[in-house]
Amino acid sequence: MSSTWGDRVKISVFGESHGKAIGAVLDGLPAGEPLDFDEIALQMSRRAPGRDRSGTPRKESDLPQILSGVLNGTTTGAPLCAVIENTNTRSGDYENLRSVPRPGHADYPAALRYRGFQDVRGGGHFSGRLTAPLVFAGAVCRQILARRGVLIGAHVASVGAEKDIPFDPVCIPDEQLRRLSCVCFPVNSPEAESRIRAAIERARLTQNSVGGVVECAVTGVPAGLGGPLFGGMESAFSAVLFGIPACKGVEFGAGFGAAELTGAENNDAYYYDGGAVRTKTNRAGGILGGITTGMPIVFRAAFKPTPSIGLEQDSVDLNAKTNTRLRVQGRHDPCVVPRAVPVVEAAAALVLINAMNETNGGAEK
Amino acid sequence: MSSTWGDRVKISVFGESHGKAIGAVLDGLPAGEPLDFDEIALQMSRRAPGRDRSGTPRKESDLPQILSGVLNGTTTGAPLCAVIENTNTRSGDYENLRSVPRPGHADYPAALRYRGFQDVRGGGHFSGRLTAPLVFAGAVCRQILARRGVLIGAHVASVGAEKDIPFDPVCIPDEQLRRLSCVCFPVNSPEAESRIRAAIERARLTQNSVGGVVECAVTGVPAGLGGPLFGGMESAFSAVLFGIPACKGVEFGAGFGAAELTGAENNDAYYYDGGAVRTKTNRAGGILGGITTGMPIVFRAAFKPTPSIGLEQDSVDLNAKTNTRLRVQGRHDPCVVPRAVPVVEAAAALVLINAMNETNGGAEK
Amino acid sequence: MSSTWGDRVKISVFGESHGKAIGAVLDGLPAGEPLDFDEIALQMSRRAPGRDRSGTPRKESDLPQILSGVLNGTTTGAPLCAVIENTNTRSGDYENLRSVPRPGHADYPAALRYRGFQDVRGGGHFSGRLTAPLVFAGAVCRQILARRGVLIGAHVASVGAEKDIPFDPVCIPDEQLRRLSCVCFPVNSPEAESRIRAAIERARLTQNSVGGVVECAVTGVPAGLGGPLFGGMESAFSAVLFGIPACKGVEFGAGFGAAELTGAENNDAYYYDGGAVRTKTNRAGGILGGITTGMPIVFRAAFKPTPSIGLEQDSVDLNAKTNTRLRVQGRHDPCVVPRAVPVVEAAAALVLINAMNETNGGAEK
Amino acid sequence: MSSTWGDRVKISVFGESHGKAIGAVLDGLPAGEPLDFDEIALQMSRRAPGRDRSGTPRKESDLPQILSGVLNGTTTGAPLCAVIENTNTRSGDYENLRSVPRPGHADYPAALRYRGFQDVRGGGHFSGRLTAPLVFAGAVCRQILARRGVLIGAHVASVGAEKDIPFDPVCIPDEQLRRLSCVCFPVNSPEAESRIRAAIERARLTQNSVGGVVECAVTGVPAGLGGPLFGGMESAFSAVLFGIPACKGVEFGAGFGAAELTGAENNDAYYYDGGAVRTKTNRAGGILGGITTGMPIVFRAAFKPTPSIGLEQDSVDLNAKTNTRLRVQGRHDPCVVPRAVPVVEAAAALVLINAMNETNGGAEK
Repeated sequence: MSSTWGDRVKISVFGESHGKAIGAVLDGLPAGEPLDFDEIALQMSRRAPGRDRSGTPRKESDLPQILSGVLNGTTTGAPLCAVIENTNTRSGDYENLRSVPRPGHADYPAALRYRGFQDVRGGGHFSGRLTAPLVFAGAVCRQILARRGVLIGAHVASVGAEKDIPFDPVCIPDEQLRRLSCVCFPVNSPEAESRIRAAIERARLTQNSVGGVVECAVTGVPAGLGGPLFGGMESAFSAVLFGIPACKGVEFGAGFGAAELTGAENNDAYYYDGGAVRTKTNRAGGILGGITTGMPIVFRAAFKPTPSIGLEQDSVDLNAKTNTRLRVQGRHDPCVVPRAVPVVEAAAALVLINAMNETNGGAEK
Repeated sequence: MSSTWGDRVKISVFGESHGKAIGAVLDGLPAGEPLDFDEIALQMSRRAPGRDRSGTPRKESDLPQILSGVLNGTTTGAPLCAVIENTNTRSGDYENLRSVPRPGHADYPAALRYRGFQDVRGGGHFSGRLTAPLVFAGAVCRQILARRGVLIGAHVASVGAEKDIPFDPVCIPDEQLRRLSCVCFPVNSPEAESRIRAAIERARLTQNSVGGVVECAVTGVPAGLGGPLFGGMESAFSAVLFGIPACKGVEFGAGFGAAELTGAENNDAYYYDGGAVRTKTNRAGGILGGITTGMPIVFRAAFKPTPSIGLEQDSVDLNAKTNTRLRVQGRHDPCVVPRAVPVVEAAAALVLINAMNETNGGAEK
Repeated sequence: MSSTWGDRVKISVFGESHGKAIGAVLDGLPAGEPLDFDEIALQMSRRAPGRDRSGTPRKESDLPQILSGVLNGTTTGAPLCAVIENTNTRSGDYENLRSVPRPGHADYPAALRYRGFQDVRGGGHFSGRLTAPLVFAGAVCRQILARRGVLIGAHVASVGAEKDIPFDPVCIPDEQLRRLSCVCFPVNSPEAESRIRAAIERARLTQNSVGGVVECAVTGVPAGLGGPLFGGMESAFSAVLFGIPACKGVEFGAGFGAAELTGAENNDAYYYDGGAVRTKTNRAGGILGGITTGMPIVFRAAFKPTPSIGLEQDSVDLNAKTNTRLRVQGRHDPCVVPRAVPVVEAAAALVLINAMNETNGGAEK
Repeated sequence: MSSTWGDRVKISVFGESHGKAIGAVLDGLPAGEPLDFDEIALQMSRRAPGRDRSGTPRKESDLPQILSGVLNGTTTGAPLCAVIENTNTRSGDYENLRSVPRPGHADYPAALRYRGFQDVRGGGHFSGRLTAPLVFAGAVCRQILARRGVLIGAHVASVGAEKDIPFDPVCIPDEQLRRLSCVCFPVNSPEAESRIRAAIERARLTQNSVGGVVECAVTGVPAGLGGPLFGGMESAFSAVLFGIPACKGVEFGAGFGAAELTGAENNDAYYYDGGAVRTKTNRAGGILGGITTGMPIVFRAAFKPTPSIGLEQDSVDLNAKTNTRLRVQGRHDPCVVPRAVPVVEAAAALVLINAMNETNGGAEK
């Protein structure tokens, strides 16, 4: 159980929020892939803090420095290590958290797991800041995938009670995914954006926070990736998605909604569209029996509200062994969902680049 | 991507629905654990087909034969292999499925992945029958866990629109879990059972099927298991749960509901209960930052309706390359949810036995 | 640390020498591979006991029963499980070994590791008998490899002081490998066979045993398999070879001999042989930087003498906590080396089928 | 197949010889371990180039910068990333190697594997320089192990035909290991050092190189670590040792010598030494059935002579597709063996810290 994931393409994420630097090693990338660094910087900026009032006021340039695995702008096939310095840290804000854990945060279980030696400043290795290396890794992988026809895009599906228009799972234009995947507050409906921004602003003004859902779509994935049982694509996606801090639910296609349907309603009927087999609906979310069907992959990830809120809350003092009250200091997002969108896209990119080289067995070159 | 899972305790599942046998190898079990074979048989019977009209009429005794890893009723520490013979197969029912894939089933993507060589009879390796070895493995692991104070139980939380009473996530009596985990149609409310059975019967009578949700709880798990990022408990649970055929959604604690809450609503306040730290609510489902909090672990898994229904559906003929109509023959469950309950419990047992030996690093014996 | 190995093609080996059965699950084989069962039986018979006086007089038919993963004689792509029954067991021979460990055998460390619960009969899971599932797995894999031009063969390079003629590492005819890989006592020199047999017979007549070396060659392996550091082919081969009971040394190409050479002597000069790059010598054993060069892969594995000998030896009584003397009963090989030859070949086949699907990264289909 | 290794404690090594930096991520270290940075620097200096004429004249300070996982000099339990800058690079020396591969080096197979995109400067990711992060990781792990009573030391067992006195495998004083593990040219016999240095100097003066053997011992390892088949300690050690560039052979205890012995000679007789079980000899090298016996672990790794030599050699021009001659420019070690000693010790430390947390299965806390 570790901060390392993958088999063909492995990622090892390191760093603590207020330590010297955070970063990632990507091992197993194909050689000879040119990287567009402007595109990487764009993806980093979508997640970076300090953009607007919907996120934390902490500002970080988040420019990754690539230490290895790239020569003349092209991957060499050796492990790619990228490091992002932490520059804007105000660690004094966090000292009391070592004895008084924040409700809803990892403070308490981490203190048990690491026997008090964990870095609590800014959440340490549990900080949402650790998603920056994920976004970097995703930005690299999605460029490689795009060259093979795979497009990834996600949007803020909901925040609190406010909802965006969901994807049409049988028809997701490239243009839609391209547009979503280059903006900071990606929604399908401009009208929804203002409602959602208002909900976040309400949370911010009341020193509270609010949760939401990210919906992600991937098109161009060849049919036949994945496998039965634990080798399925849903297992792979969910293992990475639940690795994103604050993610508490993952569903594919109709998801929990499928639990309320009949088979006749939920089954996706096949038909020939020219020479290609397609389905009239896509309640499977592009995955059956753990294997891609060739239809768009569609899934949703639920994010809980940021646990760090300005309101006073009940907690305990682990040193004094007494009940106490806590008001969390520091700079925090009233809602992580907009910034989680590029992280979810990055998770999808990691899973897919790891799966794309899959064939059934060892000797089919 | 394979039918193998785990690191400390590994499971390798094999078999095809209408092949000679199915089974599993469990590698890494502790030595010296006595096994109660009646208890294993009880768990197998909860999942076994042919019990009542809510499941498939196919009957299998499903008695596992243990080939290795057990001596004088006690684990030896060597890999434990159990084999379950397939006796009641009617393979003639499936021959046309090689060219005409069932909507909602793995037939089509499996045909691509295995280039037509997959065993289609009864769904082959994709059959729900492959959950029998999972239940066996879970039955072994839960006995070992129970000796360490860990109890697992699940119930039919909903079928279609009919709902059972959910767990109270802050207080789940041992008695409740013990009762649920030894019956075939586990519900918290006897009244709900009749409504849910009626919904399944309606689906059966209309040659249709219906989906549902299983809710699972685990008590007695020590705080401090798991880790950040991909090493979190949610990632581990979801990777196995999505390996269960028909599972399309997984959520922990408040799950997707947390996306509609504010931080003040969703955070679980800490307090001292005698000398122990507990939370007043448990919207986290017993996991924060990927690490167990010591509160009950609570999660839900959504199952889609069985894709094999008697109603005629649109499909394609992959040989003729034309559209066609399909009426699925064979014996099928109108609802897999009641039989999925022991499978979900088994998945939880596997994840926990694999995690229980986790410590932070290599040299802390 | 387990009896499971591999990433693309995984093997999980189970069973105890005097238990009900032994076997293996092979997960990740390509679909659509026809299997020649006579060829499998031939390989099993090369390893099987009871052939002549150079091995143990225990007789086992060792016919594997395939439970899954094969339909109409062809792989389905689902996990292939094969089971071999244990029929000829005389467990009474072993009872005293629980308290008096055999020198040179795993008895003592296994008793500590499994706290006395391990199956000691016939060596339990540590028995050389567990190499039968390995040979089965290798027999499956080498058929698939042969169709891709990869040939594997090994010989008894030495027993005690008696040596066979080694391979010429730059030129190994297919015919030589084909001949070696279908006989029970494979040597390059018929004259060497009689000397080696005599050495084994001397050990047998004195109730002693004797060690030896197996040399293995693989031709037809494409250049470019493997990778740097821990991902190298030498790491992969050695991890499986040291999994064979009694193996205490592994070397590639010039191996330990290279430690006595200068660079000018050890470097293999390149030249063009028609359009193909070859080396004039092959002291690298076909592997440089962990990657195959396209030249034959050549390695040697050293096997210690069978620890179970009829001579009386010093040991301890773990129950009485006193020194004692031990005379090992039971039927044992005076020399495992001839029977280890097909096991070494099988190990090579497993490593290669797992590596053949390797490319540099995730998206190069 | 990757530059990542381990399960409980994972290491991911990155970097290219003439790139910006090299380094490693260590994931899974226990929290709360104080690190002695002077001791780390000492280990780094033992491997660092430019010390004396037995190694390359390239000078690197090799001071690792720790980016994460350490707070106030103590491990936090989060992944530890250390980066070592490359400062002293003369890349012009290597340009012609892209078309004319050096005999005995990874140039040619790497060019095939990475399709010409690999970084060839200084050997890129295949450079011996990548052992610096290994030594760093080992320096961290051995401090943690030493606190648990485990000591590691190695010596230059031989260079060419010149040999040092081997370890006495039944009795290795702590003092001996402590002395070896802090010097740059570790030998058991001072007299051997001068002979060995002379052999290296002869190779240097003739623009040649020479191979050798490193022998390593580990004391204080508890009995019962490891397991049968692929889970054995020999498999673990060898997988990491063969990851060290130029390693071509690995043997444990009597190793290849055991192949020439009888069982009566090779078996290690047990006896009670006070209350402890010991063996009178230790031809097993402290490992039986893949499991530690409690006796010292002793193994040897053979290193081939450095392939980069000043003498002119035959090679090919891959662009011109013609035979050619090559004289390797650049600064190279006439013998890597003295500098390989701390690398072998580091490999042992990695394997042991990964294994120390092993127990038989998932639920034995």
